[in-house]
Amino acid sequence: MALTRVRFVAGRAGQWKIDEVRVIRGETLSDASRLSHGEEPALPSTEGGNWVLEGVRSSEKYTERGERDELTKVQPDLGRPTSLRGALIPICKRPSWWALAQDERRALFEDRSHHIKIGSKYLPAIARRLYHARELGGPFDFLTWFEFAPENAGAFDELVGRLRETEEWRYVDREVEIRVRR
Amino acid sequence: MALTRVRFVAGRAGQWKIDEVRVIRGETLSDASRLSHGEEPALPSTEGGNWVLEGVRSSEKYTERGERDELTKVQPDLGRPTSLRGALIPICKRPSWWALAQDERRALFEDRSHHIKIGSKYLPAIARRLYHARELGGPFDFLTWFEFAPENAGAFDELVGRLRETEEWRYVDREVEIRVRR
Repeated sequence: MALTRVRFVAGRAGQWKIDEVRVIRGETLSDASRLSHGEEPALPSTEGGNWVLEGVRSSEKYTERGERDELTKVQPDLGRPTSLRGALIPICKRPSWWALAQDERRALFEDRSHHIKIGSKYLPAIARRLYHARELGGPFDFLTWFEFAPENAGAFDELVGRLRETEEWRYVDREVEIRVRR
Repeated sequence: MALTRVRFVAGRAGQWKIDEVRVIRGETLSDASRLSHGEEPALPSTEGGNWVLEGVRSSEKYTERGERDELTKVQPDLGRPTSLRGALIPICKRPSWWALAQDERRALFEDRSHHIKIGSKYLPAIARRLYHARELGGPFDFLTWFEFAPENAGAFDELVGRLRETEEWRYVDREVEIRVRR
């Protein structure tokens, strides 16, 4: 069964207007005026794009059953009419992260950094969808897409700020935050 | 950091002679006389291939630190001069496997099916390397490559036979065994 592929195209067209391309760590992405975001079968055209990022919706690598059951209760879908703001955050993790064994990564991810617990505090206000990109060979390991109402922009800033203070984030060696509106 | 890509090409050329293409479950792969196997930067040409399978060497999804340390002590590298026999086993797992949470898959994989424990009993006789293919969008989720000496062909049969009897294997819905020699 093939996984659903996603594509982000930054250029002069697209449903989202780019407010800011802000580099958090490492190399930035070039500026552009609009961003397209679409999953199969509605992948946006790459024509005229300044940059294109692709990923897939895949199985969860760290979330356990109990956590997923809790998330499912409060997790909103994408595309809410009130979600007039969005953000794309592509990140790469250091080779030292990927050299860890599964139980070590899980311990860093949740037991020590509370990644799921922090994210769930901002549900349902901040909708998020994780795409995996590392095995596809692109420049980033993950592409996370967020959608929220304008009045929740402060909560979004707080969420990503808290994640960036975690021990897990010491393993991030490239991160760009692309803020958009529609 | 890009992952190392692998390519298997079945056709009329290649360092391995195909002895048998045996379907274990689901649709088979077409017959061919020779198999090429190469990792970047030595990917074999796809020209004239009856079929081509690609994957990547990626992080381990279930192996814990203690298990990896044990494996590392006994795990041989590929390419031993005595490894005159080989096997490529591409498999696909059912959607119900992928719908499980990480802790459920881990429990099935090792606590209930002893995947690592069984495999390690056949080390260093049977060298193996796992490639991930699911996120690449190919027809299989995993490609496992085995190498061994002719006198260990019986041990190889025993190893895959034991794995196929596990609870984990009930989630396999396509499996083909390609046996080769050089």
